[in-house]
Amino acid sequence: MSGLKELVLEYGKRARGAARQLARSSTQQRNGGVEAMADAILAAEVDILEANGLDVAAGKEKGLSSAMLDRLTLTSKRVHAMAQGVREVAALPDPVGEVMRHWTRPNGLQISKVRVPIGVVGIIYESRPNVTSDAAVLCLKTGNATILRGGSESIRSNIAIASALSKGLAAAGLPAESIQLVPVTEREAVSHLCAMDKYLDVIVPRGGKGLIETVVSQARMPVIKHYDGICILYVDAAADLAMAREIVLNAKCQRPGVCNAVETVLVHKDVLRDFMADTGAALAGRGVELRCDEETYAVASTLPEVSPKSVQARPEDFDTEFLDLVLALKVVGGLEEAQEHIESHGSRHSDGIITADPLLAERFLQEVDSATVYWNASTRFTDGGEFGFGAEIGISTDKLHARGPMALEELTTYKYQLRGTGQIRT
Amino acid sequence: MSGLKELVLEYGKRARGAARQLARSSTQQRNGGVEAMADAILAAEVDILEANGLDVAAGKEKGLSSAMLDRLTLTSKRVHAMAQGVREVAALPDPVGEVMRHWTRPNGLQISKVRVPIGVVGIIYESRPNVTSDAAVLCLKTGNATILRGGSESIRSNIAIASALSKGLAAAGLPAESIQLVPVTEREAVSHLCAMDKYLDVIVPRGGKGLIETVVSQARMPVIKHYDGICILYVDAAADLAMAREIVLNAKCQRPGVCNAVETVLVHKDVLRDFMADTGAALAGRGVELRCDEETYAVASTLPEVSPKSVQARPEDFDTEFLDLVLALKVVGGLEEAQEHIESHGSRHSDGIITADPLLAERFLQEVDSATVYWNASTRFTDGGEFGFGAEIGISTDKLHARGPMALEELTTYKYQLRGTGQIRT
Repeated sequence: MSGLKELVLEYGKRARGAARQLARSSTQQRNGGVEAMADAILAAEVDILEANGLDVAAGKEKGLSSAMLDRLTLTSKRVHAMAQGVREVAALPDPVGEVMRHWTRPNGLQISKVRVPIGVVGIIYESRPNVTSDAAVLCLKTGNATILRGGSESIRSNIAIASALSKGLAAAGLPAESIQLVPVTEREAVSHLCAMDKYLDVIVPRGGKGLIETVVSQARMPVIKHYDGICILYVDAAADLAMAREIVLNAKCQRPGVCNAVETVLVHKDVLRDFMADTGAALAGRGVELRCDEETYAVASTLPEVSPKSVQARPEDFDTEFLDLVLALKVVGGLEEAQEHIESHGSRHSDGIITADPLLAERFLQEVDSATVYWNASTRFTDGGEFGFGAEIGISTDKLHARGPMALEELTTYKYQLRGTGQIRT
Repeated sequence: MSGLKELVLEYGKRARGAARQLARSSTQQRNGGVEAMADAILAAEVDILEANGLDVAAGKEKGLSSAMLDRLTLTSKRVHAMAQGVREVAALPDPVGEVMRHWTRPNGLQISKVRVPIGVVGIIYESRPNVTSDAAVLCLKTGNATILRGGSESIRSNIAIASALSKGLAAAGLPAESIQLVPVTEREAVSHLCAMDKYLDVIVPRGGKGLIETVVSQARMPVIKHYDGICILYVDAAADLAMAREIVLNAKCQRPGVCNAVETVLVHKDVLRDFMADTGAALAGRGVELRCDEETYAVASTLPEVSPKSVQARPEDFDTEFLDLVLALKVVGGLEEAQEHIESHGSRHSDGIITADPLLAERFLQEVDSATVYWNASTRFTDGGEFGFGAEIGISTDKLHARGPMALEELTTYKYQLRGTGQIRT
């Protein structure tokens, strides 16, 4: 292979060929492929663990944090869980082939809008090696070929996993090139992928802002971004404060490092003191650092249980995804002010209102322009599994094609089939 | 206003503000806005015709072709048709607010997938001034703000039309900034629009390849491309040849200058002679120049009615959108070969099979990866009006979000509304 660009183009051509074959495959064949992928992961367990051991050793040498090393590390148990995750996808309903709409025109022409695979999906991701199998299996299930480009930390693990998946597909009579991993760590590989609109129908970057920015500025094909979330909850004057406490605690503490965890809570001025005395104390008790605006800080300072965990917020705290046991707090005068804050500082991911006033809640649900808007529930439900979608490839922060949890349906597109009896246009 | 970039950014900010207000408007309010836009066009007839007269004079001086001058020229009749076209949009059903899906999770959480406006739509187009009102009204109907950037030839007409539309909106109590036309002809304006992903949610380029290429390579937001069409018909051995004749004549001759006109016909070798003697002669009789591959040319040469209009095709003829009374002809051995040609040379816009064999037809409909696939009908039906959509903003040659005729529904997106009673994630 002469150069990196040629290599990536070669992957593209092969993926396009595989996608054509996949488009002609049946649900049963693809489900067989999914089962074979799961079997192949188990069969390759030794290879995968060996490759992963080298990645982990290299990561230690590079000085990766223990959290990162933990995300990188595979064990026999984790490999079995990976295979099980793949197998479960076989049981999900197949969206491909669904007739989304069918109608007959006055001239007798029959029009069907039919769900079809997108074609070739590019996935660019960082770190966790199980994204390799998670993403590849969802694409395969929906008849798409995939080109994967993982992070350099897990390159050996990714190669071993992708190689097993391809073998599984071949064993099931499906094209091995349906899943291809770009086996190089050069950053230029991403640029070459972004230029290849002839062979890549969509590109899904999953990772840090830097990676997503690079892809957005270079890609010639549609990009479905998975930016992080600055999720915001508004505790209204008419909120049930016990409910507010449980929701805020859950949204902040149940898993602080994920994109649907809450980062800012806006509190109506009329309930500020009661909220701080109850929820503020509960948060402090759970070890959450409270970054308070002036008014909130003044109240916090009078509460001995809250005060030690409270600091004065800097302006940037309201634009930060902490991904940690840190929460920004701000007082607002009402719904309008809460909405303004969400519009200016939120990330249009998941935002909610806690109130017993249904009219106010409905205004919030209608007017706030976020992928998911909540009334009286934790933002942690923004998740394909929690929505009942069975699996997800991520949470799209884009508005077009896929918004919010991106699952099997969002990995498809449609075409129109027109059946006539000689109709011509007059 | 200091510079062009600042001007474009200012338009973006205003559009975002208008979009927020539009998102809160009712169907009734927006339909009132549409009616007011139609009234305002009529009220501004003199201004519009005067501005258009200046554009036409400038166009003549620049040496525009008579076809281009005709597309540019407005008359009183055309202005009234423009207003009528706007008015008809008021009567179309409003997709915004539709509950696309509603379900309840085992924990009682209610999830609604609701259709909402996209936000701010950028439209970059060339030449015909009535695109200004056509595009703006469809966006307004669906609750979107629009930033328009038309071609330099019709700049004065576009300014007059957009100004009338804004006045109409203001009269109806909707934000005048819902429709803004960038009133400059500098090419850099397009680059500034393409960089403004904070204020533009999607950009729709309508025009030549050069314009679309520029937008694709620069845009940071989703682009919905409207590339031209190299539409292909395959006349199978089992085709009803009289039907094939009528379909091919219609698809080529009814309006050769549009994107859904046929550009290449593939003919099964077993019916080549009969097809050429009948359809070939009919096409020649309608003045169509036939660009024939070797075998087709050999047959054409033996037919006195066909021979004078036949020439030997060059390879590039099979990759050309003629938009004229020119047709490329090629013999194929069967469905597989036809599909290979369509995959290699088509533009995935509108392709069809003419056959009496339903199994073959269904294979074609399933396997050919084009926005619209036809069995026994003219490709000229790829059109929002012909589909029954009432109106269209164009024909998308993209695969994501909008594919094929792009109408009101395709100018919307969705969000998830979650209604709970205190649900938290465990």
